[in-house]
Amino acid sequence: MTLSTRLTRLLGIERPIMLAAMDKLADARLTEAVSAAGGFGILGGGYGDPEWLEAESAKLVAMRERTGLRFGIGFITWSMAKQPRLMDIAIAAKPDALWLSFGDPSPFAERARAAGIKVICQVQTVEMARDAVAKGADIVVAQGSEAGGHGGSRGTFALVPAVVDAVGDKAVVVASGGVADGRGLAAAMMLGAEGVVLGSRFFASQEAAADDSAKQRITEASGDDTVRSIIFDISRKNIWPAPFTGRCVINEHAKRWMGRELELTRHMAEEGPRYEAARAAGDYDIAALIAGEAVSMIHDVPPAGEIVRNITEQAEAMLARGQGWRG
Amino acid sequence: MTLSTRLTRLLGIERPIMLAAMDKLADARLTEAVSAAGGFGILGGGYGDPEWLEAESAKLVAMRERTGLRFGIGFITWSMAKQPRLMDIAIAAKPDALWLSFGDPSPFAERARAAGIKVICQVQTVEMARDAVAKGADIVVAQGSEAGGHGGSRGTFALVPAVVDAVGDKAVVVASGGVADGRGLAAAMMLGAEGVVLGSRFFASQEAAADDSAKQRITEASGDDTVRSIIFDISRKNIWPAPFTGRCVINEHAKRWMGRELELTRHMAEEGPRYEAARAAGDYDIAALIAGEAVSMIHDVPPAGEIVRNITEQAEAMLARGQGWRG
Repeated sequence: MTLSTRLTRLLGIERPIMLAAMDKLADARLTEAVSAAGGFGILGGGYGDPEWLEAESAKLVAMRERTGLRFGIGFITWSMAKQPRLMDIAIAAKPDALWLSFGDPSPFAERARAAGIKVICQVQTVEMARDAVAKGADIVVAQGSEAGGHGGSRGTFALVPAVVDAVGDKAVVVASGGVADGRGLAAAMMLGAEGVVLGSRFFASQEAAADDSAKQRITEASGDDTVRSIIFDISRKNIWPAPFTGRCVINEHAKRWMGRELELTRHMAEEGPRYEAARAAGDYDIAALIAGEAVSMIHDVPPAGEIVRNITEQAEAMLARGQGWRG
Repeated sequence: MTLSTRLTRLLGIERPIMLAAMDKLADARLTEAVSAAGGFGILGGGYGDPEWLEAESAKLVAMRERTGLRFGIGFITWSMAKQPRLMDIAIAAKPDALWLSFGDPSPFAERARAAGIKVICQVQTVEMARDAVAKGADIVVAQGSEAGGHGGSRGTFALVPAVVDAVGDKAVVVASGGVADGRGLAAAMMLGAEGVVLGSRFFASQEAAADDSAKQRITEASGDDTVRSIIFDISRKNIWPAPFTGRCVINEHAKRWMGRELELTRHMAEEGPRYEAARAAGDYDIAALIAGEAVSMIHDVPPAGEIVRNITEQAEAMLARGQGWRG
């Protein structure tokens, strides 16, 4: 038995689990590992590095020729929009789906659909969900504030059913933010979602393109210890448009600057280089460890395929147990 | 068939649905309506008004003598701690459970347990859950940031399973924040909760002690339109200890002062009386309409008992359907 939902049928996959398109961290290796296990891997095109994107998507195309692999390519929409070439590279790879998050999907969604590519839009409010569907989204990812990295303020628990009520008749709704195990997948399905997106959980996988020390810290962190802020965006000189903020594990740098963001901007002559050096050295007392509240449920660093299989099996067991609550 | 969980068995109730102890809004009438339908009503002692508490608890005691009604009494712990007499009134009514939220439960939890009264502690983090259990909580309510009124920053979706993992072997865990229908109850159970607490949903019930115009506004609001802030606490001169903030529907007053909280404190000579007048007149363009992100799923103002029954039945149907997701 595997779970069959509108998501699995639309994408032609076996398990309703998607890899969050985490910038560079979700490279061809991690994307392939998730897809090979029956989930849906999405290459993390992120802000957009054409050389990286070309090289990583070429690997996926080569794998597809050998194995029939299915995969997506994902972008931070407002950033990708500044480099039209990125869209050419993505379309040329003929992914099964294009992931667009944070920004107006209009021109890109149309172009993808014209090329026979499904459109996934990640949204943070009900209004954004309506807009995404009007602009051609086949799949709407309702991302709750629990998520690691950039996101909004609404929580997953009330956002998912509200998005289902608003657009569920026109698009497939998927839950993102706070999901790390089979309980989360089963709960998301009860809320009306057809699958889940996992970020932090795949960050702490063997194949993720990240430092072992970062993965180790995720396994040790509590969800109590994360915060949404703009400290890290200021520190790396990567200012995002409102209303988005980025969730990270609270570290020394965050403790030092929380509530003093304006002051931080005035100290960037020293703090900028200090932050860059920490990133280069993998010093996560200063550099951001981007992860969500679901870290509470992450205690190991297994192969990504094992994560896909275990979560599905745990969810199946939870759903089967649903019949058991009888008076 | 009704749902049987550790919560229903511990409290001797039929349906795993609790009324949030909303200050004065959850009076004897609403408490009785929830309990009479098989849920667990909790009188909203809130900040603590001895005369009100004595009168309302006397009504519940009288009903219990006639019908065997089960009920709880709830307090905002840090506020109740300033008036020891409130605890005497509550104990004298011999409720089945005492609800303590926001503050150190220690002395009150011990006294309740000594009187054979179960202790419910609402918490906003995993650490607070551990502390509550160490201090004698029988039931831990994991309250996500989606909730209306005062609360913390962690979302329900990742908080509930983390609290279950931390204290689920020692206490019964219940989910609060973002729940308004049977999907929410079913999802909470998948996350490991043994029941749910509803606030906004019972606010928009016929029995809630609130203006009809306030209830109507809840049925019209979107979860996108709520915000956690301290604007209303400043405006009514009721400053809470950090880290708690209050979620309300965004209205004209909130739009005017969001991001300008410090400035608001300097304008209280005019804004304070203006706010008080609006509260007295039921003008919710200025006065806070305290509600959570679940308002997206609230479209009517039914009797509270109907809410209890409908949510349970919808959850039962969702859980039964759990078997249906097969490939």
